Amino acid sequence: MDTELICLDDYERQALSTLDTRYGDFFAAGADDEQTLQDNRADFKKLRFRPRMMRNVADVSLSTTILGNLISLPVGIAPTSRHKLVHHLGEEATARAAKSMGTCFCLSTYATTKAAEVAGLSGDATQWFQLYIFKDVQMAQRQIQKAKKHGFKAVVVTVDLPVVGNRRKVNGTRKANSAIDGFELPPHLRHEIIEELLGRDNSVTSKPCSHLTWKDLAMIVSASPLPVIAKGILTEEDAEQAIKAGCSAVYVSNHGGRQLDGVYSSISALPEVVKAVGGRVEVYMDGGIRTGTDVLKALALGARAVFIGRPAIYGLAVGGEKGVRRVITILRDELKLAMQLSGITDVNDIPRSLVQHESLIPRL
Amino acid sequence: MDTELICLDDYERQALSTLDTRYGDFFAAGADDEQTLQDNRADFKKLRFRPRMMRNVADVSLSTTILGNLISLPVGIAPTSRHKLVHHLGEEATARAAKSMGTCFCLSTYATTKAAEVAGLSGDATQWFQLYIFKDVQMAQRQIQKAKKHGFKAVVVTVDLPVVGNRRKVNGTRKANSAIDGFELPPHLRHEIIEELLGRDNSVTSKPCSHLTWKDLAMIVSASPLPVIAKGILTEEDAEQAIKAGCSAVYVSNHGGRQLDGVYSSISALPEVVKAVGGRVEVYMDGGIRTGTDVLKALALGARAVFIGRPAIYGLAVGGEKGVRRVITILRDELKLAMQLSGITDVNDIPRSLVQHESLIPRL
Amino acid sequence: MDTELICLDDYERQALSTLDTRYGDFFAAGADDEQTLQDNRADFKKLRFRPRMMRNVADVSLSTTILGNLISLPVGIAPTSRHKLVHHLGEEATARAAKSMGTCFCLSTYATTKAAEVAGLSGDATQWFQLYIFKDVQMAQRQIQKAKKHGFKAVVVTVDLPVVGNRRKVNGTRKANSAIDGFELPPHLRHEIIEELLGRDNSVTSKPCSHLTWKDLAMIVSASPLPVIAKGILTEEDAEQAIKAGCSAVYVSNHGGRQLDGVYSSISALPEVVKAVGGRVEVYMDGGIRTGTDVLKALALGARAVFIGRPAIYGLAVGGEKGVRRVITILRDELKLAMQLSGITDVNDIPRSLVQHESLIPRL
Amino acid sequence: MDTELICLDDYERQALSTLDTRYGDFFAAGADDEQTLQDNRADFKKLRFRPRMMRNVADVSLSTTILGNLISLPVGIAPTSRHKLVHHLGEEATARAAKSMGTCFCLSTYATTKAAEVAGLSGDATQWFQLYIFKDVQMAQRQIQKAKKHGFKAVVVTVDLPVVGNRRKVNGTRKANSAIDGFELPPHLRHEIIEELLGRDNSVTSKPCSHLTWKDLAMIVSASPLPVIAKGILTEEDAEQAIKAGCSAVYVSNHGGRQLDGVYSSISALPEVVKAVGGRVEVYMDGGIRTGTDVLKALALGARAVFIGRPAIYGLAVGGEKGVRRVITILRDELKLAMQLSGITDVNDIPRSLVQHESLIPRL
Repeated sequence: MDTELICLDDYERQALSTLDTRYGDFFAAGADDEQTLQDNRADFKKLRFRPRMMRNVADVSLSTTILGNLISLPVGIAPTSRHKLVHHLGEEATARAAKSMGTCFCLSTYATTKAAEVAGLSGDATQWFQLYIFKDVQMAQRQIQKAKKHGFKAVVVTVDLPVVGNRRKVNGTRKANSAIDGFELPPHLRHEIIEELLGRDNSVTSKPCSHLTWKDLAMIVSASPLPVIAKGILTEEDAEQAIKAGCSAVYVSNHGGRQLDGVYSSISALPEVVKAVGGRVEVYMDGGIRTGTDVLKALALGARAVFIGRPAIYGLAVGGEKGVRRVITILRDELKLAMQLSGITDVNDIPRSLVQHESLIPRL
Repeated sequence: MDTELICLDDYERQALSTLDTRYGDFFAAGADDEQTLQDNRADFKKLRFRPRMMRNVADVSLSTTILGNLISLPVGIAPTSRHKLVHHLGEEATARAAKSMGTCFCLSTYATTKAAEVAGLSGDATQWFQLYIFKDVQMAQRQIQKAKKHGFKAVVVTVDLPVVGNRRKVNGTRKANSAIDGFELPPHLRHEIIEELLGRDNSVTSKPCSHLTWKDLAMIVSASPLPVIAKGILTEEDAEQAIKAGCSAVYVSNHGGRQLDGVYSSISALPEVVKAVGGRVEVYMDGGIRTGTDVLKALALGARAVFIGRPAIYGLAVGGEKGVRRVITILRDELKLAMQLSGITDVNDIPRSLVQHESLIPRL
Repeated sequence: MDTELICLDDYERQALSTLDTRYGDFFAAGADDEQTLQDNRADFKKLRFRPRMMRNVADVSLSTTILGNLISLPVGIAPTSRHKLVHHLGEEATARAAKSMGTCFCLSTYATTKAAEVAGLSGDATQWFQLYIFKDVQMAQRQIQKAKKHGFKAVVVTVDLPVVGNRRKVNGTRKANSAIDGFELPPHLRHEIIEELLGRDNSVTSKPCSHLTWKDLAMIVSASPLPVIAKGILTEEDAEQAIKAGCSAVYVSNHGGRQLDGVYSSISALPEVVKAVGGRVEVYMDGGIRTGTDVLKALALGARAVFIGRPAIYGLAVGGEKGVRRVITILRDELKLAMQLSGITDVNDIPRSLVQHESLIPRL
Repeated sequence: MDTELICLDDYERQALSTLDTRYGDFFAAGADDEQTLQDNRADFKKLRFRPRMMRNVADVSLSTTILGNLISLPVGIAPTSRHKLVHHLGEEATARAAKSMGTCFCLSTYATTKAAEVAGLSGDATQWFQLYIFKDVQMAQRQIQKAKKHGFKAVVVTVDLPVVGNRRKVNGTRKANSAIDGFELPPHLRHEIIEELLGRDNSVTSKPCSHLTWKDLAMIVSASPLPVIAKGILTEEDAEQAIKAGCSAVYVSNHGGRQLDGVYSSISALPEVVKAVGGRVEVYMDGGIRTGTDVLKALALGARAVFIGRPAIYGLAVGGEKGVRRVITILRDELKLAMQLSGITDVNDIPRSLVQHESLIPRL
C-alpha cells in the first residue's frame, strides 16, 4: 500500500482516514474558520516559476547549512507535539528518520518522548530543541542548559503563543484542560519533557505565559549557550525585534494556521521578513509546504531552509520511521527535480527572479 | 446541546434550522441577489493581520466608551425589529443580555416590546433608541423626548431607508402590508412602539418617509436632548453631511445588505468614512461581524465599536437571554484572544498597521 | 403562478423550463464557451454603489428621451428574432407591451411578424427598426424608406454580424440552413420581413454580408430619412467611426454574447465608449441587464438607455404581452427603488461617482 | 457520431471516454498538482478581445509561412509521442491529416512510426523533426543529418526536458522504465526512431541528458543543415540565449504542463518572450489552444503560429486521419470566424490592440 503513496497529499489522506478522529482532528485543525490554514497552501500556488533551460543540471546540490550545521537538504522537521498519538514510537521514530535522511529534527516541548531518548540517537545529527517559556526566564534558562547537555544544537523559542489559538475541531471534543492547549492525552502517554521539567502538576503549563516581551527573550539569549531561533515571526517589525534580542535566526511561521486566523500566510510574509532581515541572520519558514516546488519557491524568496510539520506527522502515522523517511524522500526528489527543471544546481544559489507573483506577471 | 455551539455560525445554523421558515427568512434575507449580504462577510476575509509578538498581553482591556458611556467590550446590539418572532420574551431578553454583559442595546422602532419595558430594566445600562422618521420632523422630535424620558442615552436615526429594500425571500411569502416593510406580524404580536406612537392605523408607517433631507436631520439634532447618531452612512460625502447636521457619531451600515444590493460592504466603506470623519466624531459599523477577528479588523480600520444584528437574533432564538449572552461572550472571548495573539492590549490603542488588504500585501 | 415570478431570473427559469428545448436553446445560447454570455452578467456584479442618503427621493423621474422621443423609463426592448417561436402572437405582443409601458420596441429584421402589423399599433409609440444590410447599400436604403413609411422612428444597424457567431447549443441541433444563422423555422412560421424584402429565396440572406465598411454605412446614413444607430460597438475606435459615419447614436453590445466569444462584456466596454463619444451622440447598451441595479449602473457609466433582449423573450414565453409588461414593470420598479435607495431622483442626472469598480475601492 | 463532435472539448471527452485509461492518462496528465496544465487553458480566458466592426472581412487569409514554408493556417501539430497508443496507424495518420490540411506536422523522437514512413508521404509538406539530445552533441548532429535526408524542413530541439517531469497519473500505474519517461509501450509497439538511432538498448535514453548547455545547442546549430527551433522557452533570458545560439525560431512551451508544475502558462509567457525577441526570429507557442479564439489571442500577442498537442491525439483517437483533419478543420473554421468577427483579414496583420488582459481593461 505504502508504495502507492506518491505525494504528500497521499500521506495526508491515508493518515487522516486511519487515525482516530480525535487525533486526526488535533493535528489537522487550524484556528477559527481555518482561513490561514488554507492560505498557507493556496498562496504558494500564486507564485509562478520562470524556469531557465540548458544550464547543465546533471549535478545538483541540495545540501546546505543551518547555523553552521550541515544538512543534506533544506527541509527539516518542524516542532510538533505528541507524536505518540499517531505512532507508538513517537518522536524517537521521527528523529531517527530525520537523522537517517541527514536533516534537522526539532523536538517539541510537548513531546511524548523523553529528550534523552531522542538525543541518545543523535550522534552528530542536527537536532534542535523547541522551547515554550513557562513561568519565567530562569526556568527557560535551565531548560536550555539541559538541552545543551543533551546535545541539541539550537533552541527554537516559539514567540507566537502567548495564549492558545481557538481550534474549533479540537475544542469541540475536548474533555479537560490537562495542558496548555487543553488537549488531554490518553492515559498511557505522558508529556515527558514537561513532566521532567515541572512534574505532573500542570498548574504552570495550563497558564500560558502571556506576559513575555522581547526584553525577556534578550535575557534568555544573552545567557544561552546555544543559538536561539525566534519562531513565529510574520512582520518586518518583529524580525527587527528578534535580531535586536540577539537571535541567531528568524523563523517565519503562523503556527500552521493554528493561532490567529486571518494572518499572513507564511509564504506571503516571507518577502517582507527577508527584506527586513537583509542577510543579517538566517531565515527559515514553515506552513503549507507540500511539494518540492513549494520548497523551491520559499528558497527563491529567501528562506535558507523550510520545515514541515503535519506532513511528518502523517508520514509517521502511515509508516512510522519509514513513513517519515518516505515523506522526506518525496520532498527531496521533488525538490531536486524542480531545481533541474528550472535550471538551478545549488540550493544556496537560487536567484530571486526564479519566482514571480501571479499579480506581477508582465502583461505588456 | 447549547454548549456545543462554539461560534456564531453555529448559532446561525441552529436558529435557522429550528425557526419557522417565514421568520428565519425574514431575518436572514438580503436584498435582491444578496450580493451585499455576502460581501459583508466575504470582505472581512480579504483583510489580513500583521500580528506582533512578545508584547506582554497578560492584561487586555476590552472596555471603551461610546459617546461617553462605558461599555465592557466594543460590540453592541444593533437595532433589529420584532424580536418576539424568535423568542417570547423578545427585546426584553436581548436587552437584559446586553446589560448583563455590560454593553449597549439599541431598541428598534419596530420592536415588539414596549419601550418602557426595555427601559425599565436599564438602570445605568447604555441603551440607545433607533428612530425611523415617520411623517415629519415634529413627530420625530416627540419620539426623542419620550426616549430621553425612558433613559435612552442616544438616538440612532436610520438614514438609509427612504423606501424599503426588495428582499425576495420575504416578499415571496408576504400576505399583506401591515407595516413599512410589508411584513405581517402574527396576531398575538404588536409593533408596540409604533402603536404607542401612531395607534393601530398603519397608514403613516406604510408610507415610508422618503422626502427627508439632511436639513430635516439638522433640525432634529438641534432640538434633540440626546446625541444623535446617523446610521446607514457608506460614503465620505454622507459622513460629511452627517457631521454638518450635528450628529454625534456616524454609523457605517448597509442595513445588513437588506436595502440596496450592490453597495459597498460595510467593512469596505469603513476606511473611506473614517478618513473623511478624521476623528471629529465617533464611527461605528455593523454588517458581517461574526468572529472576534472581524471585530478587531473593524477596530483597526477605525471603528470605535461594532454592532451585531442577526447574531443577536440567532442567539435569542436558540437560548433567549442566555443565548444572546452566549453570543456576546463568544465574541468577547474571541476578540480578547485575537488581541492577545496580535500583540494588542487595549481596544482603544490599535494601530492601523495591524491590518492589510490582501491586494496590498507587498510581493517584493 | 405568474404572480410568484418576482424577478427576471424567475422568468428565465420559468420560460426555459417550459419552452421546447430547441427554442429555449436558441434564445439562451451564447457563442463557443459562452464566456461573454456569462461576463455580461458577472461584470455588473463587479461594480459597487456609493449610495447617498437623505436627498428627498419622494418624487423620482424615470422618463427620458432617446433621439428626441420620450420614453417612460430608460429601458427598451432590444431587437431579437423570431418571437413567434415562444408565443403565437410574437412581435405584436411584445410591441404592444412596450407601447403600453411607454417605452421603445425595436423590431428585428428576423421578425416572424409583418412590419405593418407591428407598426399598425404604433400611434406615437417609439418604435425602431433593426436592419441587417443584405447584399448592398441600395437594398438597405429601400428598407429604410419602408421603415420610415411604417412610422418607425429610427433605424438600428447591426454592425457586429459580418458572419454569424458559433452557438454550439444551436448548431448541435441544426438541420438546415434556412437563414443567415442556420436556424430553421417550424413550417407554420415565416421570416415575414425578409420574405417581404427578398421573397422566399434565401440565397441572399444565407450569405451574410461580410464586405461592409464604415463607408457603406456613411452612404446609408447620408441618404436615410431616419436617424441611424450603430449597434454592436465595443471600442473607442469604432465609436469614433460610427460618429464619423454620421450615426445619431452608438449602441454598445456584443450581441448577447452570441458573436465573438471572449470580447469585452457590454458593461466593461461602456466606459471606454462613453469617454470616446464625449457626449457628441447618445450611447445605449444591452447585454446582461437583469435587475434595476444593473440599469442604474449602466446609466451611471454614461448610457442614456439600456435594452433587454432575452428577458423580454422570456416574459413573452411565460405570459405573452402581459408577461413582457410584467418584466418591464419589475425592472421599472427595481430601477425606481434603486434610485431612491441611492439618492437619485432623475435618470438624466446620475453622477458617475455613484458607481465604483471593485478593484478601485480605496483601501487606504 | 463523429458529426456531433463540434468543438475540441468534444473530441477530448470522446477520446478519454473510450481510450484505455493507461493511455488516456498518459496523454492527459500534467505534472504534480496539474496547476500549469489548468493555467494553460484558464489564462487564455483572462484575455479579452476588442473587436473592430465594418472592415470588409469577406476575404480572409489564414495562410502564413513558418521559416519560409507556406502553411494554410497558423496552426501546426506539436510533437507528441507514441501516436499508435491511440490509433493503429499512429503518426502516419496524423501526418497525412496535417499534409492534407496544408499545415505543419512535427514528428516526435518518441514516435511509434519510422521517420521514413512519415517522411515518405511528405512531398512538399512542411514536416519538422523534434529532437531530444541524447548522450552527446555528435549523436544529435547525426540525427539532424538523417532528418535532412528524410526531407524534414526544420529541427525542433526540446530544451525543457533535462529530466522528466513528475506526472502522478502516469507514475501511479508505471510498471517499468522502458524509456526516458518511464512509460512502457505495449509489446506490439516500438519506439521506432529511437531504436533506429540507438538500438533496443535503452541504457542511453533511460538516462536523460541533463548536462546540456546553450553552448551545446550552439554547436548543434552551427553544424546543422536545417534551421533549429528551440522549444520550451518561457523567459526573456532564455529567448535571448536561444537567439545567441543561432536558433531560427523560439517556441514558447511548458511541455503541456508536464514538466515543472507552477511555471508560467504558455500564453502568459508569450508577451515577455515576444518583447525580448523583438522580431529577430519567429516565435511559436503551444499549450492550452482549444478554440479559434485561443489561436487568435496568441497571434495577437505575437506568435507567428501555434501548435496543438493533445487535441491532435484526441482527434486521432476518435477518428484516425479523418479525426485529426476534423480537429484542424474546426480550429481553422473557428479562427476564420473569430478573425471576421473581430475585423481581421490576414493572420499576418493582427494588431496587438485586439487583445487586452482582463486586469488592464480601463475602468475610468
